[in-house]
Amino acid sequence: MDSRQFTEVLIGGNLYRLSGVENEEYMQQVAIYLNGKWSELKRTEGFTRLPADYQNVMVQLNVADDYFKVKEQLAQLKSELEEREKELYQVKHDLITTQLKL
Amino acid sequence: MDSRQFTEVLIGGNLYRLSGVENEEYMQQVAIYLNGKWSELKRTEGFTRLPADYQNVMVQLNVADDYFKVKEQLAQLKSELEEREKELYQVKHDLITTQLKL
Repeated sequence: MDSRQFTEVLIGGNLYRLSGVENEEYMQQVAIYLNGKWSELKRTEGFTRLPADYQNVMVQLNVADDYFKVKEQLAQLKSELEEREKELYQVKHDLITTQLKL
Repeated sequence: MDSRQFTEVLIGGNLYRLSGVENEEYMQQVAIYLNGKWSELKRTEGFTRLPADYQNVMVQLNVADDYFKVKEQLAQLKSELEEREKELYQVKHDLITTQLKL
């Protein structure tokens, strides 16, 4: 008996049977996102006339672009958070100094 | 004469000619990232025996997974930043109150 877990996901109009998927709900969420990409691309001119491998690579590039953009936002937010922490440290220091004077 | 710009990218061992790529350097960066994914997956057992469309979907799922993870980190960082801003507001308020007392 095959004890591996299988999950079926529909991506870009095709059904894929994946093994070893630990979190099915998460996988279906990812599939919904990918199908959104497929629908988006299918609406762009000429996409459906491209060979299958081109279509697949376009989806990969598109998703990778989303990933790069969010990674960039993350880096910006990290430096913003560092700034706030420095500022907070300074203001706390000023507060203690003022309280001591009082 | 075709005035559109074409960029050639090598992804998963295949050469793709893409039109309308505005930032070639960025596109090559994205291609390097995708090739990293392909290499990673090719090292996993059984991957190279999968049909081409399965391989492509595995790459898409993998990249989408990276995207979801970074998006999650971004959401966490946003709420952390909000917390720091609230704290900063409070400490600033306390500082002003203390300064006025002084």
